[in-house]
Amino acid sequence: MKLSSKNLHERTDVLYDAIVAGGGAGGLSAAIYLARYGLKCLVVEKGRGRSFWMQELRNYFGVDPTTPGRQLQKHGTETALSWGADYLMGYVEDVADRGDHLEVKVKVGKQNSIYPVFKAKYLVAATGIIDILPQLEDMQNVYDYAGYTLHVCMICDGFDMWDQKAILIAGSEAKIEAAFVLSWFTPYITVLTHGLFTVSDAMKQKLQEHGYPLIETPIARFLGENHKLQGVEFVDGRRIECTTGLINMGAKYHNHYLKGIPELTWEGESLVTDEFCQTTHPRIFAVGDLKKGLNQVSIAVADGTLAATKIWRNIRRSTPPRKWLENIPA
Amino acid sequence: MKLSSKNLHERTDVLYDAIVAGGGAGGLSAAIYLARYGLKCLVVEKGRGRSFWMQELRNYFGVDPTTPGRQLQKHGTETALSWGADYLMGYVEDVADRGDHLEVKVKVGKQNSIYPVFKAKYLVAATGIIDILPQLEDMQNVYDYAGYTLHVCMICDGFDMWDQKAILIAGSEAKIEAAFVLSWFTPYITVLTHGLFTVSDAMKQKLQEHGYPLIETPIARFLGENHKLQGVEFVDGRRIECTTGLINMGAKYHNHYLKGIPELTWEGESLVTDEFCQTTHPRIFAVGDLKKGLNQVSIAVADGTLAATKIWRNIRRSTPPRKWLENIPA
Repeated sequence: MKLSSKNLHERTDVLYDAIVAGGGAGGLSAAIYLARYGLKCLVVEKGRGRSFWMQELRNYFGVDPTTPGRQLQKHGTETALSWGADYLMGYVEDVADRGDHLEVKVKVGKQNSIYPVFKAKYLVAATGIIDILPQLEDMQNVYDYAGYTLHVCMICDGFDMWDQKAILIAGSEAKIEAAFVLSWFTPYITVLTHGLFTVSDAMKQKLQEHGYPLIETPIARFLGENHKLQGVEFVDGRRIECTTGLINMGAKYHNHYLKGIPELTWEGESLVTDEFCQTTHPRIFAVGDLKKGLNQVSIAVADGTLAATKIWRNIRRSTPPRKWLENIPA
Repeated sequence: MKLSSKNLHERTDVLYDAIVAGGGAGGLSAAIYLARYGLKCLVVEKGRGRSFWMQELRNYFGVDPTTPGRQLQKHGTETALSWGADYLMGYVEDVADRGDHLEVKVKVGKQNSIYPVFKAKYLVAATGIIDILPQLEDMQNVYDYAGYTLHVCMICDGFDMWDQKAILIAGSEAKIEAAFVLSWFTPYITVLTHGLFTVSDAMKQKLQEHGYPLIETPIARFLGENHKLQGVEFVDGRRIECTTGLINMGAKYHNHYLKGIPELTWEGESLVTDEFCQTTHPRIFAVGDLKKGLNQVSIAVADGTLAATKIWRNIRRSTPPRKWLENIPA
């Protein structure tokens, strides 16, 4: 059922089988499986995650390649609710390990916030990442193109950039290396640093050898209309033409609430997991972009399947099989 | 493009980047990714695989839980074709390793068959499994219920059996063990052997302790209407009531065409693969039910993603990045 500040007190005494932090593709897939294993689960979704910003999901089997991520997310939320999952809009603040269960503190409401604590045997961390975008004075100008013709994922959208004049906005020198992969899709690449870092002479030479111009002046604004990129204007007034681009400035990981759990193993900001997405803490699973691996919807969905299945196995094996000793209920 | 006996000669001289054997969820996901990596691929689908028989796909994120597998398969086929994949109805007969490429022999047409040979750098084996069903004189009687209320996958459909009177049709004594897992969903289980094997005294006692009746008489027919199971009649005329059931008689693996490749590693009939679904042969990947792991659509779809991505990486890394040295084509 849908929880809110009005009715969530009905659930704060419940020991959930699992709490799913994050209601994107991975979290909702986990919730659908958990609910269909007959397990009590609660999805906590803060809103406006990476799926929300996906304008067209190109690669996910079974879904039209023009489907926006938010539509899929809405559909999955309704499906999880229909199978019996609980769902709450809120922000996971903290997770505390109480030995035989976890306590999950959630911030509900942006104003006059309340901080209920929910209990669960397992946690599925599915809060994902959010791509770092170039910061311009007018952020709406960025949102007008990001996710449309200015992409954040080469695997998802490289095909749609084929042989187009493209910009690569890099967040560091290491992230410029993406140009030499992006060239699979288009070699007409101009590399932009947005004035954020200095580029080594070696990299400058490598770019020159490949014929990729480098512009180190900060971006003033993106040009175009109707979400279709046509060019970039820089703070010095210079303009270039381009019809597409890739933002490669890294990502912010929504993982702060796990930083107090000493048993977890990190690789950078990603969680290390086993083949069932279990972290090195036996009650905590990580799915989708939070864990190591490809950041793809299809992977997150499978991760949710795996985590839910392992949680079900663990819980099921802790109780003996039910016997047919009584009459069948009418 | 769609290939047939009429136009396939246009493709027998092509060196495909990858041939995908099997056009179910895993194969089509691989084809969608391969095509969107700009790689040349051919899907060979024999028809009537496991996805075809799925009446309602319950657990796959983003798709209504009443969606039949064949609808999803049709949708995925059209998507793969729209991105540029080739597609042929045919039966993969044999794969020969030619060192720097593979040769894939396909049988096309059930009558007056022809046997074209296609060449590819990589093979994605996605031909899956098919569940073994109880053999009755009137097989239509089996098909009337199998996939509807008589299930073949407990993970997919256990929830829909909740506390119902159920049969478990086991193909061997070891497969009777599923009763003690199925009891998570319902304890009202009658175990049927269909007269195929004898049950040990130890198992008989274990079933008795759990209150699960055992019937060793062969099934004559399933009773019910409109795909809704109501009972079973046995060859001795005895009848029992039940509203649902699970068939657990094992599966036939569609893997014969790989048996001549000595580098492959098998675990039973399943292929051992790495984290990108690569087998122990560097040019052969296995996805979905053919490889070890959970037999779920979501897993197969992610497998297709992984295999296609690794193939793209291999091919991309074998050629230098494209340079921007010439003018942009108009």
